[in-house]
Amino acid sequence: MDLNALLLDYKQMVEKRIDELFPLCDVKYKKVIEAARYSLQGGGKRIRPVIMMEFCRLCGGDVRDALDFAVALEMIHTYSLIHDDLPCMDDDDMRRGKPSCHKAYGEDIALLSGDTLLTEAFFICANAPVSSDKVLKAISFLSSNAGLHGMIGGQVLDLSFEEEKPDAMALQDMYMRKTAALLIAAASIGCISAGKDDEETLKSAAKYGYNLGLAFQIIDDILDVTANEKVLGKPVGSDEKNNKTTFVSIYGLDKAFAIAAELSNMALDALDEIGGDTEALYEITNYLLDRNS
Amino acid sequence: MDLNALLLDYKQMVEKRIDELFPLCDVKYKKVIEAARYSLQGGGKRIRPVIMMEFCRLCGGDVRDALDFAVALEMIHTYSLIHDDLPCMDDDDMRRGKPSCHKAYGEDIALLSGDTLLTEAFFICANAPVSSDKVLKAISFLSSNAGLHGMIGGQVLDLSFEEEKPDAMALQDMYMRKTAALLIAAASIGCISAGKDDEETLKSAAKYGYNLGLAFQIIDDILDVTANEKVLGKPVGSDEKNNKTTFVSIYGLDKAFAIAAELSNMALDALDEIGGDTEALYEITNYLLDRNS
Repeated sequence: MDLNALLLDYKQMVEKRIDELFPLCDVKYKKVIEAARYSLQGGGKRIRPVIMMEFCRLCGGDVRDALDFAVALEMIHTYSLIHDDLPCMDDDDMRRGKPSCHKAYGEDIALLSGDTLLTEAFFICANAPVSSDKVLKAISFLSSNAGLHGMIGGQVLDLSFEEEKPDAMALQDMYMRKTAALLIAAASIGCISAGKDDEETLKSAAKYGYNLGLAFQIIDDILDVTANEKVLGKPVGSDEKNNKTTFVSIYGLDKAFAIAAELSNMALDALDEIGGDTEALYEITNYLLDRNS
Repeated sequence: MDLNALLLDYKQMVEKRIDELFPLCDVKYKKVIEAARYSLQGGGKRIRPVIMMEFCRLCGGDVRDALDFAVALEMIHTYSLIHDDLPCMDDDDMRRGKPSCHKAYGEDIALLSGDTLLTEAFFICANAPVSSDKVLKAISFLSSNAGLHGMIGGQVLDLSFEEEKPDAMALQDMYMRKTAALLIAAASIGCISAGKDDEETLKSAAKYGYNLGLAFQIIDDILDVTANEKVLGKPVGSDEKNNKTTFVSIYGLDKAFAIAAELSNMALDALDEIGGDTEALYEITNYLLDRNS
């Protein structure tokens, strides 16, 4: 199997669908659409859409049934990056090698473009061309994993660490919410889109998303120490500079990498539990672990 | 009919349901829940929930079928106020006679509490105890009226007026989106909750929300000139101080009031089109026009 061809295929499907569902319109307030699309098309890897669509295929579904949910998930991921970069949050000037949204469009428009992406994501879900049952389950998984006890809860924990340094358990809880929650949503909604949403399958999907998400975040910690700044597209060494607790600062590089590898193995176990043609997801998982940006 | 008793009844139902659906939990990130609930319980008039529930009753439905959607709408209204008050937007220190959310909890927590309210509103809708058909229509109306071409579009237009003064038409377009859109959602979702969502009924519901929303916003313009600061709960004269174009600055007080009255009459016409026991909505509409805060 040619993984790069598959990834490119999914990426192109998602990008074409973004243009259809969230087009640039010629309205007086189009600045906010431009800003949202600037960030949405910022050259992301589309990891969450790819995982959702491939889980749909793994569960015997037509990937097109997951496509609109995949776009919605990517919009929610993008809104979280825009708000996270704002001066009152992480105050990041750069994102994926380009000025962050508020640097390019101003804080007010960046704030509203994040709000737009989040709101329109649910409109897109509500109007997805699949059964009502699938839509309602998808919206429920998306909102709960993006919400208070998912991604946003993780961001609040992240902020709280500025005042009180976390231990390994607290750091893991934060990563689970901040990063893994949307990957859990990706895998779960993939299954739901295919109509295979029995308890066992959803449990394995969540296990996959959880372990991959943690591994992914630990790799981020590692790359902040080891990566090439040009390849990464953002400054390296920022965690140490900001005196941030990471898996690397707690465990050191080697142990952190071993933990990430172990978590990835558990993610692969979860795929085996679901069974079927897991080859692509195996490759994607390994690709995410071996990445250098 | 005792309007105050009815309003109090609805208000209490909504507030009890907020406590059930969006409770304060003892989690490490509870600060964001506290901040969201601080703003959600800031003593608002619950106009949108009341209108939604009364439209549901008018259309022969059980108001409890609209209740969760009413809570979700109030959460979306509240998130918009929190984000609108932020320093990068209107930079308002006070809201309803209390420090605004970011003044009480900090900008980062205020931003995230707004994101939480918006996200959890859709979770609440997706899990509302009514038919899937009603839920999907409600989410679609809610997201479209709160989104790019509704409320957020209105906020972007409002921002753009700082650079280019609007004429009456542009101002009306902004008010329609910024204020009327959520009232259109309130009335429409009330009808949907009752299962009366034929094209004619939804058209009249939208006409009601549109005209009431414009009237309501024009009354806001008038109160900024005529109100008692203590009763209003926020500083008066701020529009003139900020050199803002309003219906009062364009038309003068008397004409602005006449336009608001005319719009209210059109809202009442819309009620007549739906028919049935419109007494309460008649009174609510007149109450909103005669308000002094």
